[in-house]
Amino acid sequence: MTTPQAPARRGRPGYDRDGMLDIAVALFIERGYDATSVADLADRLGLTKSALYHHFSAKEEVLAVALDRALDPLEAVLETPAEPGERPVERLERILRAAVDVLVDRLEVVTLLLRVRGNSETERRAIERRRTFDHRVTALVREAQDAGELRADIDAAVATRLVFGMINSLTEWYRPSGELDAETLADDILRVALEGLGTGK
Amino acid sequence: MTTPQAPARRGRPGYDRDGMLDIAVALFIERGYDATSVADLADRLGLTKSALYHHFSAKEEVLAVALDRALDPLEAVLETPAEPGERPVERLERILRAAVDVLVDRLEVVTLLLRVRGNSETERRAIERRRTFDHRVTALVREAQDAGELRADIDAAVATRLVFGMINSLTEWYRPSGELDAETLADDILRVALEGLGTGK
Repeated sequence: MTTPQAPARRGRPGYDRDGMLDIAVALFIERGYDATSVADLADRLGLTKSALYHHFSAKEEVLAVALDRALDPLEAVLETPAEPGERPVERLERILRAAVDVLVDRLEVVTLLLRVRGNSETERRAIERRRTFDHRVTALVREAQDAGELRADIDAAVATRLVFGMINSLTEWYRPSGELDAETLADDILRVALEGLGTGK
Repeated sequence: MTTPQAPARRGRPGYDRDGMLDIAVALFIERGYDATSVADLADRLGLTKSALYHHFSAKEEVLAVALDRALDPLEAVLETPAEPGERPVERLERILRAAVDVLVDRLEVVTLLLRVRGNSETERRAIERRRTFDHRVTALVREAQDAGELRADIDAAVATRLVFGMINSLTEWYRPSGELDAETLADDILRVALEGLGTGK
């Protein structure tokens, strides 16, 4: 930030939209989105409700912007073109590694994304985008199975869900400040996933 | 049930304590525990609040009973004695398979358990019991690593978390009424986990 901000009420630092979003996401995770009122949110930010509405039209807009910050980079991971001569299993590995990176980099918004329950239009859209993402990864797992690069005795959709079970569990237990760095973590997950799903060759 | 129950208000069937619990758990999952009031719960059950308080002293008691129904059988899985001559990795496999069975059998209460955030004493106690459970499984993974039965290049605590990432993800996507039966599911998870964590021998 290059523009100094006017101090907020009660001596709190001034928030830009990003800073407000971070605090809102933390509060949604702590209390649950449905259980958090606009008044709770304004209170946590040290703002009046009308000051908050100056930045976001509704609580649901805060959620929508936050969920985009998880979904946009995850979807971008799938848009990277295949490298020349890349086998399906190599492409899968690259995509899974990039997905782990997004999770580690955006742990809070991904945590929120994974807790979304479909109680609003914004949540239902986010669930639909997750579903499309899963289907595209499943197609890649199937391609690697068809190429004889991954075991074919586990259904591709189940295999994809189990791998994302591991990856998504990071939101429950991984803390970037701890001893385990993101690269070792990605290595560990990729090893279990690809050897567990491998053909044993 | 062999004893006929008096009809509840509004023509709903009479609930026993178990039936009330099932409906409460479904509502907690749908709305979030914190966002569900006693009035919401009474309304869903077709009871007055005072009728509900006749069965449960507080919303938190409903939660405590529900969480016990997930935690008691999970903890029981660890209490089964080792079989004669059983190697650590075999014992681990047996325990993981039994944990999958508990999840499939008690999907709703385990779902609730996994969403608990620690906002009350009951929730904090449940989190503490989950932690103890994880530590005991981690000790078993370490034992299998030390015996050369599982790869030692992944930290035992991380390996345990990844395996339970797969298992716990069932609460997000597995539906017992679908095509995938519980046994195939357990086979798939055990295969990915034990081959992914295996020594390749």
